[in-house]
Amino acid sequence: MLAADLISKKRDGEKLSQEEIKFLVDSYTSDKIPDYQFSAFLMAAFLIGLDTDETFWLTEAMLHSGNTIDFPKKLHPVYDKHSTGGVGDKISLTLSPLMASLGYNIAMLSGRGLGHTGGTLDKLESIPGLNPFWTKAQIKNRLGKCGIAISGQTDDIAPADKKIYALRDLTGTVESIPLITASILSKKLALKTDGIVFDIKVGSGAFMKTAKDAKRLSRSLLDVCKKFKRPAVCLLTDMSEPLGHYIGNYLEIIETVNFLKTGEPEDLRKVTFRLAFEIARMNEYRESKKRFYDRLMNAINSGTALKKFIDFVRISGGDFKLLSDPGSYHKPNSSGRIAALKSGYVASFDTELIGKASLVLGAGRMRIEDKIDPMAGIYIAKKIGQEIKKGEILFRLFGSSRKAVSEAKMMLSESYKIRKEKIASPRKIITLIEK
Amino acid sequence: MLAADLISKKRDGEKLSQEEIKFLVDSYTSDKIPDYQFSAFLMAAFLIGLDTDETFWLTEAMLHSGNTIDFPKKLHPVYDKHSTGGVGDKISLTLSPLMASLGYNIAMLSGRGLGHTGGTLDKLESIPGLNPFWTKAQIKNRLGKCGIAISGQTDDIAPADKKIYALRDLTGTVESIPLITASILSKKLALKTDGIVFDIKVGSGAFMKTAKDAKRLSRSLLDVCKKFKRPAVCLLTDMSEPLGHYIGNYLEIIETVNFLKTGEPEDLRKVTFRLAFEIARMNEYRESKKRFYDRLMNAINSGTALKKFIDFVRISGGDFKLLSDPGSYHKPNSSGRIAALKSGYVASFDTELIGKASLVLGAGRMRIEDKIDPMAGIYIAKKIGQEIKKGEILFRLFGSSRKAVSEAKMMLSESYKIRKEKIASPRKIITLIEK
Repeated sequence: MLAADLISKKRDGEKLSQEEIKFLVDSYTSDKIPDYQFSAFLMAAFLIGLDTDETFWLTEAMLHSGNTIDFPKKLHPVYDKHSTGGVGDKISLTLSPLMASLGYNIAMLSGRGLGHTGGTLDKLESIPGLNPFWTKAQIKNRLGKCGIAISGQTDDIAPADKKIYALRDLTGTVESIPLITASILSKKLALKTDGIVFDIKVGSGAFMKTAKDAKRLSRSLLDVCKKFKRPAVCLLTDMSEPLGHYIGNYLEIIETVNFLKTGEPEDLRKVTFRLAFEIARMNEYRESKKRFYDRLMNAINSGTALKKFIDFVRISGGDFKLLSDPGSYHKPNSSGRIAALKSGYVASFDTELIGKASLVLGAGRMRIEDKIDPMAGIYIAKKIGQEIKKGEILFRLFGSSRKAVSEAKMMLSESYKIRKEKIASPRKIITLIEK
Repeated sequence: MLAADLISKKRDGEKLSQEEIKFLVDSYTSDKIPDYQFSAFLMAAFLIGLDTDETFWLTEAMLHSGNTIDFPKKLHPVYDKHSTGGVGDKISLTLSPLMASLGYNIAMLSGRGLGHTGGTLDKLESIPGLNPFWTKAQIKNRLGKCGIAISGQTDDIAPADKKIYALRDLTGTVESIPLITASILSKKLALKTDGIVFDIKVGSGAFMKTAKDAKRLSRSLLDVCKKFKRPAVCLLTDMSEPLGHYIGNYLEIIETVNFLKTGEPEDLRKVTFRLAFEIARMNEYRESKKRFYDRLMNAINSGTALKKFIDFVRISGGDFKLLSDPGSYHKPNSSGRIAALKSGYVASFDTELIGKASLVLGAGRMRIEDKIDPMAGIYIAKKIGQEIKKGEILFRLFGSSRKAVSEAKMMLSESYKIRKEKIASPRKIITLIEK
């Protein structure tokens, strides 16, 4: 087989075989074909498309470029939740202790934030002492102990994806449904869970700006999961505004603890609860959503959910005592605030711009090697639909330096609209896609 | 400007600006953007297309990556002929002395053969002593002396094309009309001639297998030439069978000398004469084709055309005395022959396969660094439409070794069809495209 022939075949709209796709991925991963051939293949795949079989074979080849993790019988069923990335998305942290307190085992391999979206690993690492990189043995052992295993994805998981993603990023081949599908699933499927609930974010802060694109991605994810015989559902949720009121790594730990104590704010509760319910349904839960939500509120009100989170932080080596009063530890270098310039109702946010402002403040990374400031971030006082008065605070900014704060201030002042007319708060759950 | 953004722009079907295309070509040529980004751009350009402006800008950027050659006033007008490549195509050698004997100045930069098609440079170098690489000063000086300048293309002519072509060859991005156009013209336009006649080959031995594709390429070449204000016409000519009876480097020198003595064979005459006439028309020749063809036959019959060729070979340092009896110098290492297996009429050739057989015999190159055997090649006794009897010789083979001859024999025995029914000889001139 010659790489150039396979590139031409895809270019001419022909379907590649399983062997051909495996050849391309294996050869590229083992440096037997050069970047410039693989990038030409990626562009042909981007523009011509890959069908479900091809996407399945691509995922399979990428998955098998690395190791997988399975769980002992006694730990099953184990469920995974995956988000396509958003601003202020701390749902991995709110969902897992809630589910664990109801007796569900939740395991996830998490990544770092890149660009305007945050990463669960960075949030966890903002807790002093916490080491989010677990060995395979620790994942199994700790999952058994506290019902939660959230670990950093190690280099032996789908190394092909790492190499291919770096190339896609530089060659205009990121925004392709089949390539995104293979990238997500080659990592997700490495963890041998019993089902995955995908939180597909839609809106100005999400990778998928429209429900149409989000639905296409959902179908593609579900089609390929089906070929792997892995149960999965996709929940499309709103990302037209940040989730919750806090953006930033340690700030989101604060908000997680608040949530596990009170079940507030509402948007975070709605999305967390519904994702939790979908996991329960995957596990043959047949009672009403209302009844399940009551159970979740009980886990919050009784303190068991927060206790699970504290257990998880302790088991990860983190300073769990901090969590009794997490706000007292929030010590940013510099801070600022933005007040509303007129009275009215918050009408919209440019959520991606807010994500970028938080990145400028030090909460995120432009490049994978950048260092982040755990204390940096943004507090948003009012969400879409809420009334605000002229002069009232809309944003609080916490940054690494005065310069960062003043730069982020300029961005944030462009990031919202206030209208006189009353406006409805966006529907948090857009739709469920299952097969 | 970021290469990744320009790749995405083309990928999304947007038109690139002159500056953007220049940036891509200049950055790639000076190693400022890597192969893998340029190959992704090439695939996007291949699949999305480039319009006339973009093709013009691409050509311009590639042309200006190197030097150009202009001629002193007294040598003008100077005309150029370009062939898209075929099997047995020695028209540069038959056309230029004919035109020179009528007082036209002909200048061409020629390349080496690659794959199944031959190259004028290799043919010239098969004459002992001949050095086809002329300096700029020699090109001007010798053109003034004998009316012919055929010189090897030096590295300072469109270096961007050399680098881009090597990448296209490995990334499935060769067969694109705009990319082919830019590649051809970036080299052709470097020679500041007054007009170019393009011989666009069509058929089983040509790069363009169908008249439709050949017409698309012709339109593209003429559209871009027009933007450069360079007069040009395209003549679509037949390559469903090799041109003439000889394929191979020194073998084609023999056929050239025969042609300049006799005007035979007919197919070579038809194509040579018509291309010559199109050059004359470009130079405001207003008399009939018949009258012009008579002048060409006179140049042959009077010996002036052959004398021009001998002058050209002498001026290039070649052993011109050989040309009085060129056949006596043909000394191949090994030879063979193929006889017809049945009686009938030659119905068709797989001309590309014949070109590949001649390559196996040693007359061509698989890789640019391969050495060629000047004596190797094929003699074809009968052309399409001619009658042949069982046992009569159809091919004679001349090769570097017994092994090469036996391998080529197997290929050639698959390369022709004989039918009982009488069949017409293919029309040599398919159509003229001008604007």
